Amino acid sequence: MNLEKPYIVSVYTILRNEKGEFLLLRRSENSHSNPGKWDLPGGKLISGENLEEGIVREVWEETGVSIVPGEIAGYATFELPEKKVIAVVYDGGYMITDVKLSEEHTEYTWISLDSIIELSDLPNYFKKFFSRFTAENKEPPELPI
Amino acid sequence: MNLEKPYIVSVYTILRNEKGEFLLLRRSENSHSNPGKWDLPGGKLISGENLEEGIVREVWEETGVSIVPGEIAGYATFELPEKKVIAVVYDGGYMITDVKLSEEHTEYTWISLDSIIELSDLPNYFKKFFSRFTAENKEPPELPI
Repeated sequence: MNLEKPYIVSVYTILRNEKGEFLLLRRSENSHSNPGKWDLPGGKLISGENLEEGIVREVWEETGVSIVPGEIAGYATFELPEKKVIAVVYDGGYMITDVKLSEEHTEYTWISLDSIIELSDLPNYFKKFFSRFTAENKEPPELPI
Repeated sequence: MNLEKPYIVSVYTILRNEKGEFLLLRRSENSHSNPGKWDLPGGKLISGENLEEGIVREVWEETGVSIVPGEIAGYATFELPEKKVIAVVYDGGYMITDVKLSEEHTEYTWISLDSIIELSDLPNYFKKFFSRFTAENKEPPELPI
């Protein structure tokens, strides 16, 4: 139907450690899209899966961690060579266990929100997500007494 | 977690008649959001539902029609008084049966893509969706022989 390329829905998650740093995974050099770039845990839905089932499965596959998906933290939309992606980004909460990478990723890092925006090899659509996230989750300024 | 307001995921669908016109429903004057405005069939997901189940249920509730959800036609994002919405818009295909409205809507219309963009009481986020849809589904110009 879509004469350009099909849309798909993907699910991603933010995960934080006890310092409030965010987990990023580096994509394998063999990845079909964005090889070698930083990534959030997540991926596309399997047929029949709901959004929560999808994000639990993807995070488990990619990090060895079972999460309980919480609120939705935001979204990202982007275009890959063969499809357009509508990405729903969950807040997977705080993580205290170790990460066990799959073959999809080669490295992981915990990084502060300020440093994420400066990263050179994080795709732009995730930077936009984190910028919105920062704006939407800023503590309101304290009122003068 | 989100200090502003929570995100939710909703599902909508485009439906066309044999002339290729699109179905719009007019929201009731009692609607919590966008009262009296034109709307696409759809609404928010129920807990546990996948996207396809959600859109089939919503279209059935709002039009009395059982659809087989096809490809995803695009997306819309918007803010309501109490939440932010990530809307996945399906292509529900062509419809030949009659529409039976629920109490949520008061009127329906079949309308051409060109006329949709001119409508004064269609929310802006659906106009943006239809503009993108038009751009993405334009037939490529025929090559000179």
